[in-house]
Amino acid sequence: MRKGIYPGSFDPFTNGHLDIIVRAASLCDKLYVAAARNGTKEPLFTLGERLEILKECCQGNGSIEVVTFDGLLADFCIKNGISSIIRGLRATADYEYEHAIALMNRRLAPQVETVFLMADAENSFISSTIVKEVARNGGDVSSFVPPAVVSQLKSKFS
Amino acid sequence: MRKGIYPGSFDPFTNGHLDIIVRAASLCDKLYVAAARNGTKEPLFTLGERLEILKECCQGNGSIEVVTFDGLLADFCIKNGISSIIRGLRATADYEYEHAIALMNRRLAPQVETVFLMADAENSFISSTIVKEVARNGGDVSSFVPPAVVSQLKSKFS
Amino acid sequence: MRKGIYPGSFDPFTNGHLDIIVRAASLCDKLYVAAARNGTKEPLFTLGERLEILKECCQGNGSIEVVTFDGLLADFCIKNGISSIIRGLRATADYEYEHAIALMNRRLAPQVETVFLMADAENSFISSTIVKEVARNGGDVSSFVPPAVVSQLKSKFS
Amino acid sequence: MRKGIYPGSFDPFTNGHLDIIVRAASLCDKLYVAAARNGTKEPLFTLGERLEILKECCQGNGSIEVVTFDGLLADFCIKNGISSIIRGLRATADYEYEHAIALMNRRLAPQVETVFLMADAENSFISSTIVKEVARNGGDVSSFVPPAVVSQLKSKFS
Amino acid sequence: MRKGIYPGSFDPFTNGHLDIIVRAASLCDKLYVAAARNGTKEPLFTLGERLEILKECCQGNGSIEVVTFDGLLADFCIKNGISSIIRGLRATADYEYEHAIALMNRRLAPQVETVFLMADAENSFISSTIVKEVARNGGDVSSFVPPAVVSQLKSKFS
Amino acid sequence: MRKGIYPGSFDPFTNGHLDIIVRAASLCDKLYVAAARNGTKEPLFTLGERLEILKECCQGNGSIEVVTFDGLLADFCIKNGISSIIRGLRATADYEYEHAIALMNRRLAPQVETVFLMADAENSFISSTIVKEVARNGGDVSSFVPPAVVSQLKSKFS
Repeated sequence: MRKGIYPGSFDPFTNGHLDIIVRAASLCDKLYVAAARNGTKEPLFTLGERLEILKECCQGNGSIEVVTFDGLLADFCIKNGISSIIRGLRATADYEYEHAIALMNRRLAPQVETVFLMADAENSFISSTIVKEVARNGGDVSSFVPPAVVSQLKSKFS
Repeated sequence: MRKGIYPGSFDPFTNGHLDIIVRAASLCDKLYVAAARNGTKEPLFTLGERLEILKECCQGNGSIEVVTFDGLLADFCIKNGISSIIRGLRATADYEYEHAIALMNRRLAPQVETVFLMADAENSFISSTIVKEVARNGGDVSSFVPPAVVSQLKSKFS
Repeated sequence: MRKGIYPGSFDPFTNGHLDIIVRAASLCDKLYVAAARNGTKEPLFTLGERLEILKECCQGNGSIEVVTFDGLLADFCIKNGISSIIRGLRATADYEYEHAIALMNRRLAPQVETVFLMADAENSFISSTIVKEVARNGGDVSSFVPPAVVSQLKSKFS
Repeated sequence: MRKGIYPGSFDPFTNGHLDIIVRAASLCDKLYVAAARNGTKEPLFTLGERLEILKECCQGNGSIEVVTFDGLLADFCIKNGISSIIRGLRATADYEYEHAIALMNRRLAPQVETVFLMADAENSFISSTIVKEVARNGGDVSSFVPPAVVSQLKSKFS
Repeated sequence: MRKGIYPGSFDPFTNGHLDIIVRAASLCDKLYVAAARNGTKEPLFTLGERLEILKECCQGNGSIEVVTFDGLLADFCIKNGISSIIRGLRATADYEYEHAIALMNRRLAPQVETVFLMADAENSFISSTIVKEVARNGGDVSSFVPPAVVSQLKSKFS
Repeated sequence: MRKGIYPGSFDPFTNGHLDIIVRAASLCDKLYVAAARNGTKEPLFTLGERLEILKECCQGNGSIEVVTFDGLLADFCIKNGISSIIRGLRATADYEYEHAIALMNRRLAPQVETVFLMADAENSFISSTIVKEVARNGGDVSSFVPPAVVSQLKSKFS
């Protein structure tokens, strides 16, 4: 059984993330969607809020499990028999940082392969950062994020 | 009448900004130069200080109006009949972020076109960030910013 | 009256080119669409074939004129009172080459401004080169080029 | 059963290609390694020579089959039930072209996913073009290509 | 006598920095390794801690001197008769920022040349930021930094 | 004695090349300027024509010697005790290709260091390719190349 993991901060979850999850699920027998517990930046949404949205958006697909984890992604992969880390790529700037992280993860866990999927053209300009900026200024983000995230953003910024 | 807008944080205003404004003014019948009220980062100069400099540097050109605005740039354009957002580009890294923002703005206001001008070679390395860093360390920035900004920077860092 | 020019080899003309033309036309009172007579590479379509397609696709918009020219673009702009060169940008690689050309054109004709529009997301992956490659291998290119170009490509590669 | 394909011109086959094949094979139940029959550039090695090397280098792994094909890659995938196209990425320039090709292939065959693996650091500077250039000038390429390719290059350039 | 300087924040010092220092030392008669006293970001290690590590790692090479400085790098170079600033480059993103800084330094001190060395392939993915992230999450960084830095990181994050 | 080499095709020699040579000469006790005998592309100027221009432009600086060579650059460096290969960088696209070549040269001749200088802002858009294109179309290139090259280009294209 091939297990994959799609890690992210999902702050907030966007239609771009959802597209990658659907495509990644077809590459694995089991796909973990993993919200990072603690990053270096202060998130807008709590881990609980982000997990709730992820579970709501991924329910109905039995091969997907929403998780969180402490510590190194590479360690989590080894402990859980995960053979692929899945990452979405949009612009060139993404690419460089992701390349460095992927090479580092190969050193930390040589048996785990990082696999990249390209964002679809229609999602190529959607990032959590830009979505938050639009929502903070009262813009309509309903084309860029799932309905549950629209509500979450509205209550944060009202 | 074609109306354009050149938005920015102008923290501080540089000769690179001035060059784009002069060139942008020739593309529009009326050009708004718009200082962003509130970004995500804490600016070095207050909105008042930045507006004052912009007004001083743009005076004498009757087709230019210095403004500020709250909320979404796309909304401000729609309300004021502005058909073009003008942005200057320097390096590739600028390009990618600006591309994403431009595509987002097309979704928010399809009737507003984002138009890019390339920084001139002699201004290609001048950014507000680098200028602040040089001034903070006591360097001479008089070739990179208008005289009024030299004074402003000196009093901030003395 | 503001005159602009959108130069290209259009070998062949794509929906990406068409999108830029429509948007560029709204920025000018008159827009020249100019097929390059002779480039360094051997084109698939003759200049006559390319002009015919351009005329067919641009007809109905009275402010657009399809032309060709010999010599330097900068000289053509000066002779015809053209104040803006319009270029579409897709990827970062485009950007760098276009930046160099724009800076060179500023030296050759300082009064002519190069103005860049970003390709829309849905056209971001459509280039004449890739379209030719797909058509050469029998693929369906009808979503990427106007109907007249589909026929032209079919007769070239049959 | 998940089938993948790793297409390329392999002119010549390098250690970078071999690394991607080994890693790609672990992601699929069956991996086609496909040498492009005809590209736009004149190859140094004939299709026969390239297939011979591929077969020699891939023998011993029962899940790999070396093939060639005419026409569109997307069509070949559909006909053979292949669900993943695998591509290796080195530098940013690779990334942009590959992104455009991947988006085009999604339009031509939406059920086929393009999956990218990053070149390992030690292979990041090895390209067929640079290897040919070194070999043409009498340099030692034995650290960059399999032994059989060393011999092939020597006889081409002696 | 040619004097060079290799400035950085070294927060922490990595094997990538060490490789550049060794190579840079062969280009100069005297090489200053200069830890920046105060940047805009809060460092993980104090200036004292960083200087101690630098001295330990550079001892034994008589042509290297570890220093710190206040104010502008360009001023420090002029005062000390330094003719070359040495910088290591990894990815494209590095390149752009470094290009702008180098052009600015040419304006501030035209007699000082900025010289770039490319990171070796095996170090291309090692950055202070990624090393800190791995160490913070309990990962083994002993292949990426000198032994003294491994200890320093352990005591910070224990 | 530190020996450096600045290799190129110089087809034709530009003011950008000249700027790099002047700056590189200050880094070495002896600088070889080496015109590549045979590249993969057909040059506009013969090797003899290119060497003549180089000699004319570099005369008067006793530490510079104009040469040509067959075979690998790395071999030429080893045979002549050259410790540094000097390359100029303009845009990001340059950077990536040059990075790969530099890493390859480190493998072929570990004792030879590749050293990069950034093109000055005013030369950042000047490439041999663009200069040829302008000259071919009758444009004035006298700001971009030495006077001798202006004459050479005129006689080629008249």
